[in-house]
Amino acid sequence: MIREKIAQVSKIMQEEDIDLWLIFVRETEVNRDPVLDLVLGANCTWQSAFMIPAQGKPKAIVGSLDEARITETGGYDVIGYKEGIGSVLIEQLDIIAPSRIAIDYSTDDVMSDGLSHGMYILLMKYLENTPYADRLVSAQSLISSLRGRKTPEEIRRIQTNVDLTEEIFDKVTSFLKPGLTEKEVAAFVLSEVERLGVGTSWEAEMCPSVFTGPESAGAHAGPTDRKIERGHVMNIDFGTRSEEYCSDLQRTWYFLREAETSAPEEVIAPFETIREAIALAAEKIRPGMEGREIDAIARNHITGKGYEEYPHALGHQVGRSTHDGAGLLCPEWERYGSLPYLKIEENQVYTLEPRINISGYGVATIEEIIVVRSDGGEFLSHPQQKIILVG
Amino acid sequence: MIREKIAQVSKIMQEEDIDLWLIFVRETEVNRDPVLDLVLGANCTWQSAFMIPAQGKPKAIVGSLDEARITETGGYDVIGYKEGIGSVLIEQLDIIAPSRIAIDYSTDDVMSDGLSHGMYILLMKYLENTPYADRLVSAQSLISSLRGRKTPEEIRRIQTNVDLTEEIFDKVTSFLKPGLTEKEVAAFVLSEVERLGVGTSWEAEMCPSVFTGPESAGAHAGPTDRKIERGHVMNIDFGTRSEEYCSDLQRTWYFLREAETSAPEEVIAPFETIREAIALAAEKIRPGMEGREIDAIARNHITGKGYEEYPHALGHQVGRSTHDGAGLLCPEWERYGSLPYLKIEENQVYTLEPRINISGYGVATIEEIIVVRSDGGEFLSHPQQKIILVG
Repeated sequence: MIREKIAQVSKIMQEEDIDLWLIFVRETEVNRDPVLDLVLGANCTWQSAFMIPAQGKPKAIVGSLDEARITETGGYDVIGYKEGIGSVLIEQLDIIAPSRIAIDYSTDDVMSDGLSHGMYILLMKYLENTPYADRLVSAQSLISSLRGRKTPEEIRRIQTNVDLTEEIFDKVTSFLKPGLTEKEVAAFVLSEVERLGVGTSWEAEMCPSVFTGPESAGAHAGPTDRKIERGHVMNIDFGTRSEEYCSDLQRTWYFLREAETSAPEEVIAPFETIREAIALAAEKIRPGMEGREIDAIARNHITGKGYEEYPHALGHQVGRSTHDGAGLLCPEWERYGSLPYLKIEENQVYTLEPRINISGYGVATIEEIIVVRSDGGEFLSHPQQKIILVG
Repeated sequence: MIREKIAQVSKIMQEEDIDLWLIFVRETEVNRDPVLDLVLGANCTWQSAFMIPAQGKPKAIVGSLDEARITETGGYDVIGYKEGIGSVLIEQLDIIAPSRIAIDYSTDDVMSDGLSHGMYILLMKYLENTPYADRLVSAQSLISSLRGRKTPEEIRRIQTNVDLTEEIFDKVTSFLKPGLTEKEVAAFVLSEVERLGVGTSWEAEMCPSVFTGPESAGAHAGPTDRKIERGHVMNIDFGTRSEEYCSDLQRTWYFLREAETSAPEEVIAPFETIREAIALAAEKIRPGMEGREIDAIARNHITGKGYEEYPHALGHQVGRSTHDGAGLLCPEWERYGSLPYLKIEENQVYTLEPRINISGYGVATIEEIIVVRSDGGEFLSHPQQKIILVG
């Protein structure tokens, strides 16, 4: 998989007019540049420079005691140093003589921001009095394309996790009944995760997140001792991790009150609205559009029906991480920086996850996963069509 | 434990004349400021500011959907935001009006370098046209003291892991025989780790590291298919992780050749030399000394006997991480930056781990763990006195 991703790098660097990609890290077990999972798959101890040129074999300059393990990865010609990396780094830069050097920082995308500020200062110190200090650019665009353009094998792995997650959601439906607590539902999900021998997409304390009824804790909180009651809308946010890849889906259930045979209209109408918003977004999405355009389609559909807008992005990328980097279907809010304006690319994999609070009932959420094709979004999940009723 | 560490912060901030410690992070599951393990113990998604004043209760500014889970940690008054953190951050800074603000960057210490370069740029953008941009200082010294000054509970946890590691080393001695491969020895160690229900101090692919015979792969490499032969010197570098803390120890074995009843003098002499170097370092270490002074004592003992110097530091701190931050017993080499000159503090826990290559036999290493007391180093491990013989 690392070879498959490294094979993509050269083309992207040419598109971006980058001569050298310089990944400058240390003690990666403690402070890991997230991009190393894509292009190295190992850890190093001392200051290390991974130098990927647009053409030719990548080189790695590492502390002498790390030479063996980096050589083992097979992707780099390895140069060891003992006392300091500075002079070796300049020597190697002089050989490549790059005009534009991409380094891993980004104000907007955490996946492209693996260079720490201390390491940046150190790098600038090493580059002082060389021509290279003025040739540094952000690798955000490079990393974003590399991470975003999923290979068929990456999509297969995500699909596997989507399937596993849906399988578990089906089991949950059989398990559910009024009186269970959010924590009991979460424990059931985790027992299924264990039975399948896989992991969770994010930290297990809140994967799954389970929210039942009105005024629940809100997204990104762990499950509580709150009991499911009849008349509750309940939702679960969950994904599995296997083969180093993730899924991230949400489903919504309704607990019928005595004598009810369906959910009341005030529950169905908002549920339908988010279902339609997802369908619309998936239909309209195309490579070359900006993320904010797709977010606006879903957001406007919801506010157009008189509901409050969701307080977050419509969707994020999924892959090796649950939030898989730049390229976000989000509104033009300060916290998203330049992300709303990034172009959507073919073979990116996105979630679509609007929500509506239903006063007195709970929160309706649906989260699906699509892969961007030239003619629209192809669902990897089976879109939830109806709110799931529990009798 | 987080409460115990937060209780130490105020005193250290006064010593360092810091009014506010500002931890600025996002998506901490992907790019985690290592200090969050000490002062938060949770994750956040969007740009978040953890503000710890020298006096008074810490505050956290987080994305609205993270409010619940950060409030749950109990350590912070939480303020949520929806669209952007900038204005809320300035408002809160205006209330505290700090003269010196510590932020997490360091050219030398990875544990104090949790601020990414992108987040630094973003912070400077928010602080533009405020008086605070000019009041930022590195938190290295603060974090180094906070991480380094182990509480009795922290020392107890490290001791537990030292004891477990020594227990496993004893089992290894009974298991060893010529003909086993490095990988088989490593697999045995990992089976014991699993039996005890604990973890490894660093990634399991190279924890334990096992090196047998001359010309082995060198430190920081994984075990290989190389077979142990009679006449080999073999060493293992290994530690357990339990209760969120670590150990890190090395031991050396010798495989007797036919008719031998002890190791040959050319093996015993270097082994004795590193044993003495450790004893000397532990005896001489005192709070207030610089790390380089202790490294020099051990290094000079070894080179004084005509052996080559070890190509790394004499010792690093151990705690929550295997390499537990600034404060290093190291020589004045470029790669260590300012670390050789940092003052040793009471209750810091250090490894002592010199090595000597024994031509034709293998590598002799011993790694012990000491806690710095006012009158010298107190061993948490039982120092290896003799090379362990396998018949």
